[in-house]
Amino acid sequence: MITAVIIGSGNMAHAIIRACQNTNIEIIGIYSRKIENTIEIAKQKNINCIESITNIPTDADLYLLCVNDDAIESVSNSLIINGGLVVHFSGLKNINEIKKQENKAVFWPIESINKNSFVNFKNTPICIEANTDENYRIIENFADRLSNHVLNINTEKRLYLHLAATITNNFSNHLITLAKNELDNKGIDYGILKHLLSNALNNSFIFEPYKIQTGPAIRNDLNTMQKHLDLIENQNLRALYELFSKSIFEFKPNKNNA
Amino acid sequence: MITAVIIGSGNMAHAIIRACQNTNIEIIGIYSRKIENTIEIAKQKNINCIESITNIPTDADLYLLCVNDDAIESVSNSLIINGGLVVHFSGLKNINEIKKQENKAVFWPIESINKNSFVNFKNTPICIEANTDENYRIIENFADRLSNHVLNINTEKRLYLHLAATITNNFSNHLITLAKNELDNKGIDYGILKHLLSNALNNSFIFEPYKIQTGPAIRNDLNTMQKHLDLIENQNLRALYELFSKSIFEFKPNKNNA
Repeated sequence: MITAVIIGSGNMAHAIIRACQNTNIEIIGIYSRKIENTIEIAKQKNINCIESITNIPTDADLYLLCVNDDAIESVSNSLIINGGLVVHFSGLKNINEIKKQENKAVFWPIESINKNSFVNFKNTPICIEANTDENYRIIENFADRLSNHVLNINTEKRLYLHLAATITNNFSNHLITLAKNELDNKGIDYGILKHLLSNALNNSFIFEPYKIQTGPAIRNDLNTMQKHLDLIENQNLRALYELFSKSIFEFKPNKNNA
Repeated sequence: MITAVIIGSGNMAHAIIRACQNTNIEIIGIYSRKIENTIEIAKQKNINCIESITNIPTDADLYLLCVNDDAIESVSNSLIINGGLVVHFSGLKNINEIKKQENKAVFWPIESINKNSFVNFKNTPICIEANTDENYRIIENFADRLSNHVLNINTEKRLYLHLAATITNNFSNHLITLAKNELDNKGIDYGILKHLLSNALNNSFIFEPYKIQTGPAIRNDLNTMQKHLDLIENQNLRALYELFSKSIFEFKPNKNNA
């Protein structure tokens, strides 16, 4: 049995609590600065609600800092504990953002954690890091109970993965948002594109992506690009279209992939 | 049995020839201005090679113009035929780009047709259009033999679908290209992102995409955005990052989706 205290009451706290159900990880309490949220989650999930940071149990195995990046340092500084492992969940922050604690680790799930769509971490790649071999063993043991895909990734590599995830996941979702908006305006079902986009994504993991680039920009087909631009009403989309066309045409791969 | 003449020798011609195998569509000849390519395909696929446009059979059921958008008008004008249906394959061009022919139709597969990755049209949405009901029946009969997903889409809607496909498919592939390039530089496996991106794409067809937007831009998290920008060496990617952040933050959905 692993005992853990959850600190935070946002999407990550929800996700971790849900993922720990039916494992032999016992959540012995939840604390957050948003006391009303904390009371609600504690009631919903039947967890002990900790109303003040000074009341946090000192002898848990894990202290899970499901807080905003900017709060990691101050919250971890405020914890008065007896040697348990303090864990942050940020893709971006150095492990040493946890300053005054002896035992520190990172648990970063590569997942878009949204109340509507999150299911569990079973197939989620989890990037873990710890400040000692013993602490690595502890965080690995925790992560292995939640996911089948646990990866040893240091702070620098995690930062680049966070950047790449933002570029591919968040920006692609926005491209879809903008394109769907154009189709909605004309009463056209966006679902027609699903086949194309699913194949394209699969192919980008089979082939070198720049080698399967298609479309007017890679052919420098100015007529088509102008025809497209004439259709677009959204100013930001028009600017994105122009910049993508430039970037696609100018792209040169690294020597090792060329 | 439907008889068809292929005009063109590029990726679309290859794809159509491949898709017609094992159907009761008989390709009775292939012609293209690139005579060497034509001879090679004809030999490979055991099809009659037509070396001059004046030798094209006059009595085929279908004349399939697998040519560049800019060649549709001139090639269709040059055809001397006996009433067969002339079909173009462009997402962008009006059906009336086929000018001097009485019977005209469009067959536009929503598919990235690439020699490396193309398989067949079985699950590809095919947008069809024709200038008369009788011609619609003929092109539909042809399309139904190649795909299970045939759609009646007029020229204007097809144009918007072409735009949306370019934005989502071509631009997302470029985002992946750029992100993978950053990861390659640091020796990090891009495959780690597959789970995230597959889920995100599926979710964008289940939920309203702007409602599942995550990442620093939608939170207006300036610290994270600056940290990301500091990592990016590619100038075009940096400009794209800034423009996406602006566009994500400013986006307002259509009233009917809000």
